[in-house]
Amino acid sequence: MCAIVGVINSADAAKTAYYALFAMQHRGQEASGISSCDNDGIIRTIKNRGLVTEVFNKDSFEILKGRMAIGHNRYATAGSDSLLDAQPVAANYALGSISIVHNGNLIDKDKTRQELIQNGAIFASNMDTENIIHLIAQHKSHSLKDRILYALNNITGAYCLLIQSRTKVFAIRDKYGVRPLSIGKLKDGGYIVASETCAFDLVDAEFIRDVKPGEMITFEYGKDGFKSEQIFTPDPRICAFEYIYFARPDSIIDGKNVYDVRKNMGRVLAKKSKTKADFVIPVPDSGVAAALGYAQESGLAFEAAIVRNHYVGRTFIEPTQELRNLKVKLKLNPMHSVLQGKSVIVIDDSIVRGTTSKKIVELLRHAGVKEIHFKVACPELKYPERYGIDTPSFEELISANKNIEQVRKYIGADSLEFLSIDELTSAIGNERKYSLVSFDGDYFIK
Amino acid sequence: MCAIVGVINSADAAKTAYYALFAMQHRGQEASGISSCDNDGIIRTIKNRGLVTEVFNKDSFEILKGRMAIGHNRYATAGSDSLLDAQPVAANYALGSISIVHNGNLIDKDKTRQELIQNGAIFASNMDTENIIHLIAQHKSHSLKDRILYALNNITGAYCLLIQSRTKVFAIRDKYGVRPLSIGKLKDGGYIVASETCAFDLVDAEFIRDVKPGEMITFEYGKDGFKSEQIFTPDPRICAFEYIYFARPDSIIDGKNVYDVRKNMGRVLAKKSKTKADFVIPVPDSGVAAALGYAQESGLAFEAAIVRNHYVGRTFIEPTQELRNLKVKLKLNPMHSVLQGKSVIVIDDSIVRGTTSKKIVELLRHAGVKEIHFKVACPELKYPERYGIDTPSFEELISANKNIEQVRKYIGADSLEFLSIDELTSAIGNERKYSLVSFDGDYFIK
Amino acid sequence: MCAIVGVINSADAAKTAYYALFAMQHRGQEASGISSCDNDGIIRTIKNRGLVTEVFNKDSFEILKGRMAIGHNRYATAGSDSLLDAQPVAANYALGSISIVHNGNLIDKDKTRQELIQNGAIFASNMDTENIIHLIAQHKSHSLKDRILYALNNITGAYCLLIQSRTKVFAIRDKYGVRPLSIGKLKDGGYIVASETCAFDLVDAEFIRDVKPGEMITFEYGKDGFKSEQIFTPDPRICAFEYIYFARPDSIIDGKNVYDVRKNMGRVLAKKSKTKADFVIPVPDSGVAAALGYAQESGLAFEAAIVRNHYVGRTFIEPTQELRNLKVKLKLNPMHSVLQGKSVIVIDDSIVRGTTSKKIVELLRHAGVKEIHFKVACPELKYPERYGIDTPSFEELISANKNIEQVRKYIGADSLEFLSIDELTSAIGNERKYSLVSFDGDYFIK
Amino acid sequence: MCAIVGVINSADAAKTAYYALFAMQHRGQEASGISSCDNDGIIRTIKNRGLVTEVFNKDSFEILKGRMAIGHNRYATAGSDSLLDAQPVAANYALGSISIVHNGNLIDKDKTRQELIQNGAIFASNMDTENIIHLIAQHKSHSLKDRILYALNNITGAYCLLIQSRTKVFAIRDKYGVRPLSIGKLKDGGYIVASETCAFDLVDAEFIRDVKPGEMITFEYGKDGFKSEQIFTPDPRICAFEYIYFARPDSIIDGKNVYDVRKNMGRVLAKKSKTKADFVIPVPDSGVAAALGYAQESGLAFEAAIVRNHYVGRTFIEPTQELRNLKVKLKLNPMHSVLQGKSVIVIDDSIVRGTTSKKIVELLRHAGVKEIHFKVACPELKYPERYGIDTPSFEELISANKNIEQVRKYIGADSLEFLSIDELTSAIGNERKYSLVSFDGDYFIK
Repeated sequence: MCAIVGVINSADAAKTAYYALFAMQHRGQEASGISSCDNDGIIRTIKNRGLVTEVFNKDSFEILKGRMAIGHNRYATAGSDSLLDAQPVAANYALGSISIVHNGNLIDKDKTRQELIQNGAIFASNMDTENIIHLIAQHKSHSLKDRILYALNNITGAYCLLIQSRTKVFAIRDKYGVRPLSIGKLKDGGYIVASETCAFDLVDAEFIRDVKPGEMITFEYGKDGFKSEQIFTPDPRICAFEYIYFARPDSIIDGKNVYDVRKNMGRVLAKKSKTKADFVIPVPDSGVAAALGYAQESGLAFEAAIVRNHYVGRTFIEPTQELRNLKVKLKLNPMHSVLQGKSVIVIDDSIVRGTTSKKIVELLRHAGVKEIHFKVACPELKYPERYGIDTPSFEELISANKNIEQVRKYIGADSLEFLSIDELTSAIGNERKYSLVSFDGDYFIK
Repeated sequence: MCAIVGVINSADAAKTAYYALFAMQHRGQEASGISSCDNDGIIRTIKNRGLVTEVFNKDSFEILKGRMAIGHNRYATAGSDSLLDAQPVAANYALGSISIVHNGNLIDKDKTRQELIQNGAIFASNMDTENIIHLIAQHKSHSLKDRILYALNNITGAYCLLIQSRTKVFAIRDKYGVRPLSIGKLKDGGYIVASETCAFDLVDAEFIRDVKPGEMITFEYGKDGFKSEQIFTPDPRICAFEYIYFARPDSIIDGKNVYDVRKNMGRVLAKKSKTKADFVIPVPDSGVAAALGYAQESGLAFEAAIVRNHYVGRTFIEPTQELRNLKVKLKLNPMHSVLQGKSVIVIDDSIVRGTTSKKIVELLRHAGVKEIHFKVACPELKYPERYGIDTPSFEELISANKNIEQVRKYIGADSLEFLSIDELTSAIGNERKYSLVSFDGDYFIK
Repeated sequence: MCAIVGVINSADAAKTAYYALFAMQHRGQEASGISSCDNDGIIRTIKNRGLVTEVFNKDSFEILKGRMAIGHNRYATAGSDSLLDAQPVAANYALGSISIVHNGNLIDKDKTRQELIQNGAIFASNMDTENIIHLIAQHKSHSLKDRILYALNNITGAYCLLIQSRTKVFAIRDKYGVRPLSIGKLKDGGYIVASETCAFDLVDAEFIRDVKPGEMITFEYGKDGFKSEQIFTPDPRICAFEYIYFARPDSIIDGKNVYDVRKNMGRVLAKKSKTKADFVIPVPDSGVAAALGYAQESGLAFEAAIVRNHYVGRTFIEPTQELRNLKVKLKLNPMHSVLQGKSVIVIDDSIVRGTTSKKIVELLRHAGVKEIHFKVACPELKYPERYGIDTPSFEELISANKNIEQVRKYIGADSLEFLSIDELTSAIGNERKYSLVSFDGDYFIK
Repeated sequence: MCAIVGVINSADAAKTAYYALFAMQHRGQEASGISSCDNDGIIRTIKNRGLVTEVFNKDSFEILKGRMAIGHNRYATAGSDSLLDAQPVAANYALGSISIVHNGNLIDKDKTRQELIQNGAIFASNMDTENIIHLIAQHKSHSLKDRILYALNNITGAYCLLIQSRTKVFAIRDKYGVRPLSIGKLKDGGYIVASETCAFDLVDAEFIRDVKPGEMITFEYGKDGFKSEQIFTPDPRICAFEYIYFARPDSIIDGKNVYDVRKNMGRVLAKKSKTKADFVIPVPDSGVAAALGYAQESGLAFEAAIVRNHYVGRTFIEPTQELRNLKVKLKLNPMHSVLQGKSVIVIDDSIVRGTTSKKIVELLRHAGVKEIHFKVACPELKYPERYGIDTPSFEELISANKNIEQVRKYIGADSLEFLSIDELTSAIGNERKYSLVSFDGDYFIK
């Protein structure tokens, strides 16, 4: 789960990429990187564990000083504990230097990796991005574009890719368009490509359009504009999770404002609900937009009755024995004076393992809440996502193993309600298809 | 502007102080410190620039391992750029070791400092806290309490003090009670004293009562309970600013929940306002509670239409020339799709210099807002506060130099409304007196 | 120019490798690394820029906890400024995990690299070590040994290699034995292989024997002893530079103690010299042993009249304009009171660019020396070494461009004398052949 | 045990102080600091734990940019583990700002401290330097010089002091001249005062003269030259330990070159010794000069048979159980091939606790030495020094508790010889008196 950015034909390209990554950084990113191709044709990369504000300093931009740059933000996930798993991935190969960033997931990656390895390739990391770079390197064409097409024809999965050579940046979105990718125009005439349009706002870029499913956009050093090629027949299935919880609320994905969609999910929840309560409270910040929608639809008051502490960092000092539930409490504090003796509707965006929801319910009970009606602005999460969102395995997904009543008992709420799959799609908009694998198990990319 | 904490007769006192400081840390603190008195009677102090999560690590608590501890968080302010200006201030003096933390401001500090210096004292820092420790050191009594009383009788100002000796912790609040200070009871029988009650929630402490204006509370090592003495005749004047913007919304100050008070301020604003608009938006996070109150009172919708980025850190990479207004934009992004063509009521807690408000208005205009009605949940800030809140000088306070219409023009809003002083006090509660110097210039401590 | 170590079948193998690297670290190493294979069969690597004491800490050895480990120390050289150029190089390939360290230089590396790249390989660094790992990965055998032999048959150059798999460590020395490699036995029954025997002293290992030119030694996890195979017909040509300046004086290389050899070089210099002088002084620390030999042979007094400061670190504060020659002066200070008005014989191990020698002569003149007779314990350096010692190019080697009289004038000495090539080999021992390319230009590996 | 420096009326004074401290830094300094008075009259101080190369960076000299500076290097000692114990000590007092550095030790410091404390002073550190600054602050004169004289008249002990005000630097040496202090002239016309003359060599300063025992030198901002006043009747007793081991060998103390004196100590040892041996070896680096003197006098060969590793840093990775004597072995490695079967004379500068000597003897035995004749270039250390050298207490000084034969047995040597006190003074030069308290217990400052 990550964010990518490319900046082309712009002064201080790496700096603009830095600010774009900064704007898209809202989930405690564990690794960040930028590579830039200088006028000398050498691609230089700086990447490390940590937020962009931790990885980069003034000196970084003395090194990354070209007019092209690509960058990457990785969200903290299990299993990728290594510095080597930071992107961009850069390498020397037959046609010179190249660097790649990837948002998404290749579903046949282990098979391809094994084939590549049996064929003599070596892998330095666990990232499927290395598959792509090996496929590009192994093809024999003198044209990087041909090599990229060869690579794309030999991978299956969800991907938005940015590929930087000495003279070009390619932006590619898979035919389903599972992950978002948009093009913006910078004030100095250059272009920016980014996972989330909120990046454009910070760097004063004008939104041009989305990269289309199955499209390859080519930017060339020193040339104005860009070239579009439809390299795969589109079969759009944007990931519903981008709307549900991954994107920032101020991003626009394939024409739809995320905040509006989330409010709509809350409205749909309210429409079907008969729950009586004193007011609605969100789990901050994930449930805020849906809770506002719920409140507006139901006419109930919205109260910001759980306060979130944003200073939670990496350092963890083991607490004294007395302090229970510390991890959730460090972040969230329900206000006793507001909640004491009340019936409340609590809105969150999803329930994954159920452990956090359970702790929130405990904290609310401790704060004196009388009735807790927990409402979730998406359907039950029954299947692991495999297209770039790191949802856990079947064993860990609570709704894969318990029905709604069992989940309710586990988390300790007085009632529990989810959106149905149809309600979800109607809330986003029924004119298109979505990737809904986590809810319906229809793994359409195999 | 800071937060203080003391923990007494509790295992891992310093750790509990750490978590309490963590809970009260919500304004980018620039310096943090804790000192703890071990069983060997030696007071050890760790302090440095930075948030508590930056200053302390696991090893810190190997050093700070007594059953008493006091701690301090300093909010970023001008002029205190030195490590030496971190607290606690610790020293050896005639009766042994001592350490002090101070929240507030001594108004006669320069005169006292000069007198002390002329008398032969040396000062290592610019903190007025050093005055207090010198006064304690120079008195000749064998009783620390007598020395403290002597010091208190020779200073004027607003203060909450925690003073730790080998065997005792004294908690003192000035006779006006300008700054808040509350007592809680820990689960293991120990006590905690803290500036804000939100600290109690995190460490599972039960709120006992506030320290009263003019009261000195004495905790003794190994003795249960605490002793109370009314050392000054109380003349309560709690600082209105604690309610307006300094305290965390989940704190309770002298019996009043801050979130409720802020919502009330919004309600009062709404009651007097005739403004028509499509919806109400807060400046996050400072204006959220008042905006909710305004929305509830007015019946207008509340929209979280400005998104705040919480990852703004210390490192500042100079942006490209193209990026204007970067400092505010790094934090705040208004949603175009929500705001385009709308009339909005924007709520913030206060206007100080006016520069941030001006930039917010610009960002909103850029996002397509048609009409911007800026409403402020406190009166015009016309006088520098001198009792512990670091408001700037007359020259910098925009409302000290411009009337409402001129301020409106400067920030570029279509209309601008403040609370009156009476409305403010009625919103907090008219049964008591408040420190309102910033609004009325009544410097009651001279 | 580097040092390598392998530890096999020993508890805390990585820690032992760390101490061995520490012992061999005497030239401001710029990068250090260790990889260890744990019982789980996973090879973990920690490497970074800096001395071993900077790269490793207590936590490192929680990660590197297997009973096998290989390590690497790189001496500061031009052109390898990247973190990626640190070793060990680790990769996943067809037979699992592998890591490699390499001391030496492949002379056909660019050609091989181009062939590999044309064949589809990608390179992440500029190290020739990557060639070897690619050759191993591309061979099709199920036997790692066969793959290694294939790789060795497709590279040309000077190398000592340690290759670690899940179950084995291979130690290989090229047929010329240009670089040294020795086997030692640890007290707990395990083995250590290292570039320099001084490593054995620190870790209490007993010297067993040298790895022979053209020999491959195989250590197997859990099996006692080791297997020897002569994989190439030996043609020994140990590098004379190891004796001249690279090895620590307390190392024994192919049976000869380095300190003794260096003293011998000084003796040979003295035997042919007719120079009269008050005493002999070394350039510390490089010329100490030769100067002692010279003094003992000539009967002249040895004086430690140049004091070396060992605290020169990385941080470089630009000096004031007044301070000339600072870089050399930071390290070396001649004692005026000892040197004033004297005729001295100055001994150093070699003259490379001549710039340092020139500055030393200036410092000695400034200290009042009357006559400076500069004597060098090796022949004129006329050809770039290409087998692992990073000597500079023809253009930079002063003796490639100037005769002795011209060099003398350049450095400003009153006389200048070198060893002849024959004198050098007789000083080391004429029973064997040596790699002497820097002196005679006989590039026997092509 | 420390080094001090002052630079006056010179551009980049702090930088010159930095290099001077660097030159004098040869014992793993644990704390370093410089304070500089800028044209604005404000004294700024940067100090921290660590070597100067660790404490200062480029930015430091943006802050310390005046034409006057004083600096301090503290040698690692027991008991001063705090950052607060770094110097310079700076303070604001009645006449403005002041900073002080101190080399030496006040013997009545606890009494004075108690008096000051009883009088109302507070102490932030454990340094006796704070006594001096308090005495200066408490006097009532408008003349800093009068205050300094008052302070000096109220302390007893060994001291070299540098005191910096807004306009002056005072350099003061106690009447015994126990610690050294010399004046040099910089190339740009400014002056430098330093503990060791080796500092002058690095910064291209010309030695002018020593500060005399009992003399106060006054440098004034913007005025050429300096003023001398004999403020105490001199009674010279320079500390013998400066010659024995503390100073760098290239320093000149009160007219005598340290290297020459140390060689002389070795010569005197040789003259009285009848020991037969194969050669002489020093304990590096402390015993080198004396060993050279011994070798020259005795006609025995000098061999650098123990190799010292200079890369020992702070980080300590706990070794495996197998590695015995690690701390000494990390630093020193005797060469087996040179030592095997030999009779050797080992020279060191002193024996303090005996533990290091014992381990060196063990290492030599392990290297196969047949006979070890340990000779010490100073008398038996029977009394704790109290005048600025941190020798341990009676209990820890081996020669305070054992006679020579017992010490020999303890360290395991075949013979052991010390200089007598008379031999020591004759080696330094009998025309003057020395501070010899460690040897004869004559504590002449009480």
